[in-house]
Amino acid sequence: MFSFYMPTKILAGENVVHENPEHLILGRKAFIVTGKRSGYASGALQDVCDTLLENRVDFVIYDRIENNPDVDSVYAAGRQAFSCGADFIIAIGGGSPLDAAKAAAVYATNDISPMDIYKDNFAHKPLPIAAIPTTAGTGSEVTPYSILTLHSAGTKRSFTCEDCFPKTAFLDGRYTLELPLQTARNTAVDAMCHCIEGYLTNRASHSSDYVALEGLRIIGRCIPRLISGKFNTDMCLDMLWASTLGGITISQTSTTIVHSMGYQLTYCRNIPHGMANGLLLGAFLDWCWETAAHRIEACLHALGMNSIEELKSALHSLLPFSESVSSDEIEDWLKVSMTAKNVNTPPRKVTIDDERSIYQKSLL
Amino acid sequence: MFSFYMPTKILAGENVVHENPEHLILGRKAFIVTGKRSGYASGALQDVCDTLLENRVDFVIYDRIENNPDVDSVYAAGRQAFSCGADFIIAIGGGSPLDAAKAAAVYATNDISPMDIYKDNFAHKPLPIAAIPTTAGTGSEVTPYSILTLHSAGTKRSFTCEDCFPKTAFLDGRYTLELPLQTARNTAVDAMCHCIEGYLTNRASHSSDYVALEGLRIIGRCIPRLISGKFNTDMCLDMLWASTLGGITISQTSTTIVHSMGYQLTYCRNIPHGMANGLLLGAFLDWCWETAAHRIEACLHALGMNSIEELKSALHSLLPFSESVSSDEIEDWLKVSMTAKNVNTPPRKVTIDDERSIYQKSLL
Repeated sequence: MFSFYMPTKILAGENVVHENPEHLILGRKAFIVTGKRSGYASGALQDVCDTLLENRVDFVIYDRIENNPDVDSVYAAGRQAFSCGADFIIAIGGGSPLDAAKAAAVYATNDISPMDIYKDNFAHKPLPIAAIPTTAGTGSEVTPYSILTLHSAGTKRSFTCEDCFPKTAFLDGRYTLELPLQTARNTAVDAMCHCIEGYLTNRASHSSDYVALEGLRIIGRCIPRLISGKFNTDMCLDMLWASTLGGITISQTSTTIVHSMGYQLTYCRNIPHGMANGLLLGAFLDWCWETAAHRIEACLHALGMNSIEELKSALHSLLPFSESVSSDEIEDWLKVSMTAKNVNTPPRKVTIDDERSIYQKSLL
Repeated sequence: MFSFYMPTKILAGENVVHENPEHLILGRKAFIVTGKRSGYASGALQDVCDTLLENRVDFVIYDRIENNPDVDSVYAAGRQAFSCGADFIIAIGGGSPLDAAKAAAVYATNDISPMDIYKDNFAHKPLPIAAIPTTAGTGSEVTPYSILTLHSAGTKRSFTCEDCFPKTAFLDGRYTLELPLQTARNTAVDAMCHCIEGYLTNRASHSSDYVALEGLRIIGRCIPRLISGKFNTDMCLDMLWASTLGGITISQTSTTIVHSMGYQLTYCRNIPHGMANGLLLGAFLDWCWETAAHRIEACLHALGMNSIEELKSALHSLLPFSESVSSDEIEDWLKVSMTAKNVNTPPRKVTIDDERSIYQKSLL
């Protein structure tokens, strides 16, 4: 059996926020969730505010979302959305603000404790969300997932809520054009990982495979510009669309241990999420080769590459990494990573020795 | 600018209706819309009734949907859904019952005159629909369109309502396994037309192209079995999925003059919808070649074919047609077909001489 579900209405193109107020304005009062930088630097927040003002829609800006936000901080955002009487959310940013907005949307309508977010089942529907990505990588604008930092578990952990699919998503290449180059690279690698991991999970199917491969075809065409740093709005929109395809893919399949192992690198060493995934991807593919050679070859072919080595070489160009990691650290990370849901999704059974080997080959 | 929207939850596989009652049962009382044959012969109606009975959900069976139902007949269905107090619809069948169900869903909640269905804007949301295709062609299970016979206009005419996207769609290859061979062929050609036309419209984009090509890849692999008549449930599920991909495609792009010209063949000569499209497709592609050669080649490549002639040969094998058509008839059809919305969607400007030539080359 297989399934497909992705109810978000996607609008893409230059000036798409301003030209589609009816899809941005999902209620009477907006709670705008963004980070300290992303909403402002991208120009997206300005477009949103202009559009709301022109349409005389009241709004509150909440621009305090940190990178990798923790459960308590998004709880605070959600309760503020409630107390200010907002009836919809506009999320602007990379994965952190978008994922934070989903949690805030739940807390705004449900008087629950912070940790209850992980129950995945809520008495009241979350506030509707309009999502505006300012990085091309997360795919969060088209997923029901929200990944939050959970200090009590010493890692990041996701919750899933179908009602958290954003109602609308706006892709405008201008918003990612001026991203810091390394951020653009890290997030592009995240999108690539979503497509590859989704294609390799044991939940991959007819309904996700062709989406993942289309994402990889686009990313493959963008890699030269990601390496050279020569961006334009067309290429930025292409990468946003590829990122959305990665999100559509993992909405059907979930991710794999690349993600759950990567969470430790982010939590313990502050390595950006996309980079963390990309550092682990090559060794993960080597490990998968035994049972999934044909499917890995399909991914490489879509990227326009001939071997895992060629992909590793591209990742090496995109992701500078020179930190030293110790074997003891890896042992600590394994204690957490082996408890993740994702240990059940790869194309072969995962043991602690497998994960140790992937960490070691990637980082030592 | 481009967009993507397809909110239907799709569930696919053997026994998928019975195994997912929570997605079939969208309310307290079901109004089951089906035809005289399709629901019964496919086994789908039995599966639905068993599932509803096991879950103690009340239902009414309305099995009076004719082929190419007219506006008045679906109005009657809708008013009966209202008067019996149904709060959701289960649609079982080919395009006729599925499209009828969408109109009935509108009439059930809106006290409007039959012709008001073409206003595309209704005070009350239509009843939610669970859709179960018993042919692999219409794609109606994942579109907001309903095409009804409109005697006052002497043709078939569509209405569009985003709230008419079925909430859920169930694809089970067993339901199409025993279709009459010619019906299977006609409907498969309809699915092929949706993918090709969607790919060639001037509304095609990033968000529809890869869906259309994936549909064509699957249909291309199924053509030998469609010709030989040797079906199995795997191939039937593949064709259902290809048909759904065709529906997803045209939900973004709409169709072209192949469809609007074909409606005359169906209305005036009772030629089945898919066959009508297929008879016109080859001449349409020849006509498009001047402005869309590369895109036609992409479609042919996805089908595993090298030329329009090869596609015409396959269509000839699939669609026996020996009726005689007169030039006078064609002139009558042109009066209607040139008024259709679809004259604006092909990749080059359409004149009455163009449509005349396509009719003549296809049918004389």
